[in-house]
Amino acid sequence: MLTVQDALLTLQKFWTDRGCMVVQPYNSEVGAGTMNPATLMRVLGPEPWRAAYVEPSVRPDDSRYGENPNRLQTHTQFQVILKPDPGNPQELYLESLQALDIDIHAHDVRFVEDNWAQPAIGAWGLGWEVWLDGMEITQFTYFQQVGGQNLDPVSVELTYGIERIMMAQQGVTHFKDLQYAPGVTYGEAFGQQEYEMSRYYLDDADVPANRELFDHYTSEAQRMVDARLPIPAHNYVLKSSHAFNVLDARGAISTTERAKAFSTMRRLSREVAKLWVERREELDYPLLKSEGPKIQAGAALMPPQPDPDDIGTVAAEADSQTFALEVGVEELPPHVVEQAIEQVRTTLTERLAGTRLTYGAIDVVGTPRRIVATVAGVSAHEPNAETLRKGPKVAAAYDADGNPTKPAEGFARGQKVDVADLVRAEFDGAEHVAVKVTESGRDVLAVMGEIVEVIVSGLRADKNMKWSDPELVYSRPIRWVVALWGSYVVPAEVSKLRAGRTTYVQRTDLQPHVSVKDAASFKHVLETHHLVLDPKVRRQQVVDQAAKLAESVGGTVDFEGESALVDEITNLVEQPHGILGTFGPSYLELPEQILTTVMRKHQRYLPVRDAAGKLMPYFVTIANGDCDDELVRLGNESVLRARYEDAAFFYQADLKVPLADLRSKISKLTFEDRIGSMADRAGRIADVATVLAADVDLSGPEKTTLKRAGELAKFDLSSSMVVELSSLAGTMAQEYAARAGETPEVAAALLEMEQPRTAGGALPESKPGALLALADRLDLLMAMFALGAKPTGSSDPFALRRAALGAVSILRSQPALAGITVDSGLAAAADRLRKQGIEVSDESVASAKEFIEGRFAQQLRDEGVSAGLVTAVQPLAAAPGKAEHALNDIATVRRLDAFPALVEAVQRITRIVPKGTEPSYDRAHLTEPAEVALADVVDGLPDHAADSIPEWTTDADALVEPLVRFFDDVLVMADDAAVKAARLGLLQTVVERAPSGIAWQALHTAIA
Amino acid sequence: MLTVQDALLTLQKFWTDRGCMVVQPYNSEVGAGTMNPATLMRVLGPEPWRAAYVEPSVRPDDSRYGENPNRLQTHTQFQVILKPDPGNPQELYLESLQALDIDIHAHDVRFVEDNWAQPAIGAWGLGWEVWLDGMEITQFTYFQQVGGQNLDPVSVELTYGIERIMMAQQGVTHFKDLQYAPGVTYGEAFGQQEYEMSRYYLDDADVPANRELFDHYTSEAQRMVDARLPIPAHNYVLKSSHAFNVLDARGAISTTERAKAFSTMRRLSREVAKLWVERREELDYPLLKSEGPKIQAGAALMPPQPDPDDIGTVAAEADSQTFALEVGVEELPPHVVEQAIEQVRTTLTERLAGTRLTYGAIDVVGTPRRIVATVAGVSAHEPNAETLRKGPKVAAAYDADGNPTKPAEGFARGQKVDVADLVRAEFDGAEHVAVKVTESGRDVLAVMGEIVEVIVSGLRADKNMKWSDPELVYSRPIRWVVALWGSYVVPAEVSKLRAGRTTYVQRTDLQPHVSVKDAASFKHVLETHHLVLDPKVRRQQVVDQAAKLAESVGGTVDFEGESALVDEITNLVEQPHGILGTFGPSYLELPEQILTTVMRKHQRYLPVRDAAGKLMPYFVTIANGDCDDELVRLGNESVLRARYEDAAFFYQADLKVPLADLRSKISKLTFEDRIGSMADRAGRIADVATVLAADVDLSGPEKTTLKRAGELAKFDLSSSMVVELSSLAGTMAQEYAARAGETPEVAAALLEMEQPRTAGGALPESKPGALLALADRLDLLMAMFALGAKPTGSSDPFALRRAALGAVSILRSQPALAGITVDSGLAAAADRLRKQGIEVSDESVASAKEFIEGRFAQQLRDEGVSAGLVTAVQPLAAAPGKAEHALNDIATVRRLDAFPALVEAVQRITRIVPKGTEPSYDRAHLTEPAEVALADVVDGLPDHAADSIPEWTTDADALVEPLVRFFDDVLVMADDAAVKAARLGLLQTVVERAPSGIAWQALHTAIA
Repeated sequence: MLTVQDALLTLQKFWTDRGCMVVQPYNSEVGAGTMNPATLMRVLGPEPWRAAYVEPSVRPDDSRYGENPNRLQTHTQFQVILKPDPGNPQELYLESLQALDIDIHAHDVRFVEDNWAQPAIGAWGLGWEVWLDGMEITQFTYFQQVGGQNLDPVSVELTYGIERIMMAQQGVTHFKDLQYAPGVTYGEAFGQQEYEMSRYYLDDADVPANRELFDHYTSEAQRMVDARLPIPAHNYVLKSSHAFNVLDARGAISTTERAKAFSTMRRLSREVAKLWVERREELDYPLLKSEGPKIQAGAALMPPQPDPDDIGTVAAEADSQTFALEVGVEELPPHVVEQAIEQVRTTLTERLAGTRLTYGAIDVVGTPRRIVATVAGVSAHEPNAETLRKGPKVAAAYDADGNPTKPAEGFARGQKVDVADLVRAEFDGAEHVAVKVTESGRDVLAVMGEIVEVIVSGLRADKNMKWSDPELVYSRPIRWVVALWGSYVVPAEVSKLRAGRTTYVQRTDLQPHVSVKDAASFKHVLETHHLVLDPKVRRQQVVDQAAKLAESVGGTVDFEGESALVDEITNLVEQPHGILGTFGPSYLELPEQILTTVMRKHQRYLPVRDAAGKLMPYFVTIANGDCDDELVRLGNESVLRARYEDAAFFYQADLKVPLADLRSKISKLTFEDRIGSMADRAGRIADVATVLAADVDLSGPEKTTLKRAGELAKFDLSSSMVVELSSLAGTMAQEYAARAGETPEVAAALLEMEQPRTAGGALPESKPGALLALADRLDLLMAMFALGAKPTGSSDPFALRRAALGAVSILRSQPALAGITVDSGLAAAADRLRKQGIEVSDESVASAKEFIEGRFAQQLRDEGVSAGLVTAVQPLAAAPGKAEHALNDIATVRRLDAFPALVEAVQRITRIVPKGTEPSYDRAHLTEPAEVALADVVDGLPDHAADSIPEWTTDADALVEPLVRFFDDVLVMADDAAVKAARLGLLQTVVERAPSGIAWQALHTAIA
Repeated sequence: MLTVQDALLTLQKFWTDRGCMVVQPYNSEVGAGTMNPATLMRVLGPEPWRAAYVEPSVRPDDSRYGENPNRLQTHTQFQVILKPDPGNPQELYLESLQALDIDIHAHDVRFVEDNWAQPAIGAWGLGWEVWLDGMEITQFTYFQQVGGQNLDPVSVELTYGIERIMMAQQGVTHFKDLQYAPGVTYGEAFGQQEYEMSRYYLDDADVPANRELFDHYTSEAQRMVDARLPIPAHNYVLKSSHAFNVLDARGAISTTERAKAFSTMRRLSREVAKLWVERREELDYPLLKSEGPKIQAGAALMPPQPDPDDIGTVAAEADSQTFALEVGVEELPPHVVEQAIEQVRTTLTERLAGTRLTYGAIDVVGTPRRIVATVAGVSAHEPNAETLRKGPKVAAAYDADGNPTKPAEGFARGQKVDVADLVRAEFDGAEHVAVKVTESGRDVLAVMGEIVEVIVSGLRADKNMKWSDPELVYSRPIRWVVALWGSYVVPAEVSKLRAGRTTYVQRTDLQPHVSVKDAASFKHVLETHHLVLDPKVRRQQVVDQAAKLAESVGGTVDFEGESALVDEITNLVEQPHGILGTFGPSYLELPEQILTTVMRKHQRYLPVRDAAGKLMPYFVTIANGDCDDELVRLGNESVLRARYEDAAFFYQADLKVPLADLRSKISKLTFEDRIGSMADRAGRIADVATVLAADVDLSGPEKTTLKRAGELAKFDLSSSMVVELSSLAGTMAQEYAARAGETPEVAAALLEMEQPRTAGGALPESKPGALLALADRLDLLMAMFALGAKPTGSSDPFALRRAALGAVSILRSQPALAGITVDSGLAAAADRLRKQGIEVSDESVASAKEFIEGRFAQQLRDEGVSAGLVTAVQPLAAAPGKAEHALNDIATVRRLDAFPALVEAVQRITRIVPKGTEPSYDRAHLTEPAEVALADVVDGLPDHAADSIPEWTTDADALVEPLVRFFDDVLVMADDAAVKAARLGLLQTVVERAPSGIAWQALHTAIA
């Protein structure tokens, strides 16, 4: 059996054999191998770097006295940095797993999107977590930015989690049982340290002393930055970070301190990074001049390079042939796969249309690792095309004698034809001289080559990255291109990529590279290697396999409820391979939400339910291709067991803490530095909800529920379970509150205040829940707008769009809340923020209102409401419930004849009658029959605006005819001022009796 | 070529293959791998432990901005801990060198005594520095005590100096040029770090901040000790130690701070160690129960175990045979080799004499690795011996009738003989009954076996250690015993050792274990393996080879001057193999003392001189046995070059510093915490010398010299050169002072004040030099006695014995200093110490005086002066110059007839005349002719004590005859009181005219 130390030595050997330099763990506490200067500094600047090292990573917050089977205050990372990206880091990585005796053919190894960002050091990258039978064993990241500096070249970072890899390999369930060395377990070697350091971090560290250490460290770091010494400066940044973590684990960091500390560390990190780059430049980049560490092996894992001579010439008489294109990528995030297919389809379609080739059906499919397009029957050549090139107008081209003028001669000379060869043709209605030009048809290879280049270089996703390629950017690296027409390679070059005929099949295939004979057989070749290219087919396979597996234990899968998850799974694999796993039935005692959240969110497992919809102790996981089912099942089961064990531990632990304690602990949590702690926010939410409740008709018990739920608001955020699984916020609040003896109504309100969680998600049903949920969103929106943090472009870090939509949805869904408007809600939120000393300008309130109303309008449009109707109810945007009502009414009455006529009349009035006209009239001045008739009807209307559109339509039906007559017969603008005033007053009264809140002209246009 | 990282990985592999666990470098700065808890804690207590790890060791004081080729602020140690001692750690270690591609057959690998002690953590051990061609590459220590705790079992610590090993292996002369990894040099990888961290440590670290860090760290450490958490406590001890080192490198540690800091860290270390042991006991010693890390390989390196059946029976008629004994050890310190030979010789001789075996010549020889004894013609059996066992007296044994009494019967029964068999014999003059008892002679194997056991178990040196053996203690581990009589193995068992016939020859021999046929061939076998057993022969080979090699370049070696070094070299090897090396002639520009000190002290090289005695650029090193001469020569040359390069660097650097600056920097140096800094001490020395000078006749220039030399006293202790080579103190003072333009007299005085350096070493010649040297020693003695730190038993850490002997030697050698006594000197020193606020009791002054006078007496005895004469001049002990003079005079005059007579007379008088008798007499009362005659002569003597013994002998010659007559004729104790008084007064006058300071009775006895 491989011991832990064997694994460490094996990895060192593996990576040094591949040109990495071994460096030592940092000799000050670091939270991750990334923080070691061998990563954090060396990835900066142009110098090459390859390093591999062990890093015992210290996370005081993870202290568990050595009692938790999976969590240690010091865990062991193995860190690899490859700079630049060697071009085949995934293959190298998989080879390293094999060096650890991990049979990648038997196991299910997957690259699952996981992007990395550490704003505290101005760093981010894209990549994956690598899964081994469902367990995350490695972080695999292409660093894009560090210390605020864009990286060029890009570095690949691999971070192996040694304890978890080895627990899986050795088949033990507690880290202490790992064989660390022959005859020594991990527990024997490090158990005492885990206990004692946990004691220090959680219980015994002196808070004032560590606070002063933090201050000394940061000030030394600053001094060293000033002295232009990045290495000692970084050393002290690391020390300050550790001191901060110690204080944090001791629960000693207030919101203010946290904000201040982060800002200090962020600034210092950026200064250190900048300084390091400057210093290396001053030193003239020593490693650029040396040979530098080199990837020496692994080249065997690179595919054969396309043969530049494998480019034929298409014979003139050649028949049409199939065209096939494959863009090979490293695993795309699932949501990008569909986008990529669409992008390729669109570009291919548009570009082909721009050629003179003939072609048949275009088909584009794809997997996480490839986008494959085929075009049937693409002709071998474009026909030649004749075109006319425009010269001077005929009038200018020939003199009175019909002889060519100088301009005509000049034109002919310029076109290299004899002036006699000029023809006459009409351009834009004018006759010009012209030259006949024959545009030769290009052959298919040239045409398609260009298109391939445009497609490949044009791929973009929502988040894009750089890798070893000097010019390309995309969601993940593009590693190969296959482009064939018939048996010909289509010549295309994009940056360093050259299209060829070699494709990558599954990485675990014996021969992972396959040469393809021709385009017609291309998909077939991939399919014979078990790749399921069409997402629709893949999805159906996922569903069929999962259903069958569930059925085998008498269960079902709720495919409708799990639709998004099924979509995601579909694009996580190239060949769905369902495996049924089980877990201990005792875990079913945990709240279902916990179990399903873990399955879905962490593991992408499909839960299995019985006929009654109750969870069964089974799950379905979809592996990528053939594997050792039994091994993979056991692996996944053990991952799930560990997660459920953790969850059970948290759940039990949380149940022991009084709600009041949990509630008071949220003062340690901060959402955004400047708006205070989560406790501040919860307090504001309760207060705002109470203010809003004044406009809502609440029963006595509802008032009690609102008060109590407000007091407890968001308490569960400090629970271990929610800290671990943040998506369970609210869910756990309900659970824990109910278990603590709160009323079902209070418990429900605590859940409801987190709703809706997503667009279209469930909405609060109770009034107290709705009030809290609304207050929550209004507080967030108002606070962020007050800080000037409104969303821009694609950046919406605080999910304000979602908050606005949520607020609108709540208002639309609960008629009882109709008394609350966006204005009154924001005013309440702004007042409360001001009470806390946060400055809220009137402009920011206006801006927030505009934002929410804008989202509402968008929401309506997204629901299919026409833009005109949206505009028509715009005056009601601040009261979405009313607007909703108005729209429903309009939909109801617009089929009545009277309505459009009424609307037309009212909008006509609104255009005629000056603003400010009083809705009253002196009948004495109304003498014309038409105006008398109208006045008679108006007098018979209720003396206030109609409560609803249908009511008005009914009541005002009688107005239609008189109004038509009035406008036909009466001149409103009479010379006699008194008469004119009476007529205007009469019309205004008509308007005033109409329902309020309608933009009549817009409505008129919309229903016209 | 093996890169540095290859070496680290190779060593990890090597040691894990042998059962070691790999741990990670400590994640806080440590000064050495020893400080990592994987060593410092794990060696405590009974649990087994085997660990191997890399430790980047941070020593702020070694910061050199990366400019010094051999010195780094962070160097790389590879640390191995084997607990318990596996029994063959040297063999395992040598095997590890081979794993590093070091050909131990070609190189000269030696184990050179180097004992380790770190009082700051209450730790010590015995062992070696391992030399590779003269370069120290590894520290090899058997830990005996750590944290004040005795270790059981003992651990073996190996600390490889990676940079120096690899510099030698790669043949580079600057650490930056090392290939660290393929394509990356050490300089490229770590050069910037060396520069920047040097900047921090030497120039930029904030002193107040680091001081506060130190305080926080120690207080956290104390809190963790109080919380019974040794691991976090140790963590903070390490951090405090690093903070201290930073402050020290910044030159910010005052004497008081240093004392306080060390005391704190010492105390904390001890508490941590104690606590660790307690905690492990509370945890029930987990590693005792597990299998524990095991030495799995290397067993092949153990010699075959003696065959327990290889024990014959000696035939009754067997002839005498040679006996041979070999006690095999790991390399003894050179001075222990001779002691061991003597111990074996003495014990063997005494014990053999106590047997009834017959035997011939006893011969004992030895090398650092074995003591070999042979005894010629040892008989096969002891003859039987008849003895009588005493019974009751005859008178009690038989009744009146001659019948045996009950006592006789009882005796016979007790002896199991018939009462009739009792015989009569005389015991102590009385006739007893007795029984004849025949004591059977034992055979030689039984007899010699016992002796072997006594010899082996009785070996002791001045410093002894424990190792894997449960019962034995000695200077270094005893690993095997060969004991043969003829071809028989002599059965002997001492603890786990069993005597056999297998010996170890040179470790580099193809077959390092040889089975020996019989005792007669034993030495021959060893000799055929080139072992030179006899130290005398070895010494002669050293001399002959060195002389021949020196001669080959026209030079000589000053064997007389280098006598001690030749002795040492003789016992550093088993087979002298001289190699001539050379060094760059440009180094000859350095002061000779530097060159020779480096050669002798660090390298054990013999300097080569030309006919005029001037150094030549050559040296002779004596390797141990056959090797690749060229390789070993180059290796040694490169070591010497590096050392000389360092020395030249220091020398040049020192020359740039003004003397005043050097002098003021010694305030940073402390000798002993409580007596202040070295600057305090130098100030006291200058002052004491000035006070003493009042009693010495100094010329004007001498006074000027004394003043100036006093001002500069000990300034060179802060020079880089002396910090590096402390034995050059004084030498460098003279050199630097002369170069700085001081007078030759001042320069000489600064050298002389350090003299004598050793017993019998050169003494100061100038008066100023002598005064300063004397003041130096008196200050040291007085200060230490004031602190109660007088030497006890073998412990004399401050070398007070040497100081006392030095002071005495100076006083004896300089007649000009005759006016200074031990009393006046100590009084001056005590006064000066008191002025500094140090309490000096009268008892401590008296105690110091007694100590110095005692050393003087011992010195005289060691010089061959009889104890009687030493006692005779005892009254002059406080003025050793006078005592010396007196002894010389006595030697001169004792052959004259008059002298003994005079002495006899004077001592007779001193016995008769009561103390306090006045030396005057009234001639009126002297009437007897004999007394008148005596009075006449006495009256003619000078009226004061004789200035010298010879003078007195001459002057007093005339007294002899009258004194004889006086004692013959006159009764001193006359009845008449006046007469009696006159006679006593007359005699007292005789004594008073004699030289003072003589103990007459002792002198009389001594010369009788």
